[in-house]
Amino acid sequence: MSLSVTLTALPGVPDIQDGDNLSAIFADCLSKADLALRDGDILCVAQKVFSKAEGCIIPLASVTPSPEALRYGEELNKDPRKVEVVLRESARVVRSFKRPDQNEGTMICEHRLGFISANAAVDQSNFGEEDAAMVLPKDPDASCARLRRDLAERFDARIGVVMTDTFGRPWRLGQVNVAIGLSKVPATIREQGNLDAWGRPLEVTEPAFADEIAAATGLVVRKNGRTPAVLLRGLDWQPTDSRGADILRKKQEDMFR
Amino acid sequence: MSLSVTLTALPGVPDIQDGDNLSAIFADCLSKADLALRDGDILCVAQKVFSKAEGCIIPLASVTPSPEALRYGEELNKDPRKVEVVLRESARVVRSFKRPDQNEGTMICEHRLGFISANAAVDQSNFGEEDAAMVLPKDPDASCARLRRDLAERFDARIGVVMTDTFGRPWRLGQVNVAIGLSKVPATIREQGNLDAWGRPLEVTEPAFADEIAAATGLVVRKNGRTPAVLLRGLDWQPTDSRGADILRKKQEDMFR
Repeated sequence: MSLSVTLTALPGVPDIQDGDNLSAIFADCLSKADLALRDGDILCVAQKVFSKAEGCIIPLASVTPSPEALRYGEELNKDPRKVEVVLRESARVVRSFKRPDQNEGTMICEHRLGFISANAAVDQSNFGEEDAAMVLPKDPDASCARLRRDLAERFDARIGVVMTDTFGRPWRLGQVNVAIGLSKVPATIREQGNLDAWGRPLEVTEPAFADEIAAATGLVVRKNGRTPAVLLRGLDWQPTDSRGADILRKKQEDMFR
Repeated sequence: MSLSVTLTALPGVPDIQDGDNLSAIFADCLSKADLALRDGDILCVAQKVFSKAEGCIIPLASVTPSPEALRYGEELNKDPRKVEVVLRESARVVRSFKRPDQNEGTMICEHRLGFISANAAVDQSNFGEEDAAMVLPKDPDASCARLRRDLAERFDARIGVVMTDTFGRPWRLGQVNVAIGLSKVPATIREQGNLDAWGRPLEVTEPAFADEIAAATGLVVRKNGRTPAVLLRGLDWQPTDSRGADILRKKQEDMFR
């Protein structure tokens, strides 16, 4: 059992461009900080870094809004081209809403990858392009796996990689980072719970390991965009084949909905 | 800005008994681990430790279930005396549910303190008493404030204290620790967001600082109950007058409900 865990933001991560080799960039940042990856390390990287490197930026001038997007745009005072991007990313719109105090309304969407978040995780901030929308990487798990393999080879170390995004949540204010892509990092860790009078498990404790990691990185990441990668060292975990979707609750089992 | 944060589980925390002096106990654990609290440290402590020290354990033999508790007990296959404790802790029952695969159903409740969680945070595990239920401390913020003042005095250091509990959440599997009591630790940290075309804030980024801290502690806490206190060092924060309720989203502003 690990009694101490350290989170270190990789210093000096440059602005990422389409086509950049993330493993080379992070290896360089680590080396400049006199850090080398070791067995058991987990690197946690913000989604926007992957999206930029993979060119997931859509100029709004190229987008023709559908009638549905025009309707939402009108209702919510949103750019219908951005709405169109949101709709293309979504499996469904869970809810849409414009409070009197809001300039622009919000769409709560189920992303085609299964995550539920505001605006299907489509982002307009922090990527330096006017009139463009950034969407999630096509396959966050595959992006994580590529980065993990490359870094594992460079450092000859068994590591894990987590991709995070920043989500609002029901009932509680503010945003936390959550895991949306995984390579080798377990989504949750099942612990033995209590047994009932017949010796059957009554309650299963299942910490959301990947989301704990993601949320923790918020403590060292600041939104100026210069610390999008955080190294976690000292964690107690075993490599496993996992996917970001492992952490999604099946609708029929979701008592909180 | 802090680029590195360390989480250290306090080793050797004993089983807590009604009336125990938590600050003396934690000071002893810190000293045995050659640790002293410093300005800027935050101590994050599990709810059950406070509940035990404050005697928040209710023998079920002393509880007479109301007709409402009997009805829920029948419906959900739950001990009606435990249901009665849950109802007494709750402002309202948000939803109750028994899936075919569950031995015992779940009540999603709004606690009188405003938190929404399973069974109004009433716990039957990890406190070594048969037929008893553990409830939250009466005033988690006051409990945190007492502990913070005592420890700050012992160590002559400006510190913060967070009380956590372990909650399930909508849409995503597993549990994470969340903050339910605060002393001097800001619930959220407001950062400047983007401006719209008229120079007005379009999006406000507001990391849920206290919940990030709480979730991070899950990475070093294991459920054997022996590491209920975690020291966080290296955080970037300013002491503020805060309450656990600061992190609750007002119902009318909750687009996720």
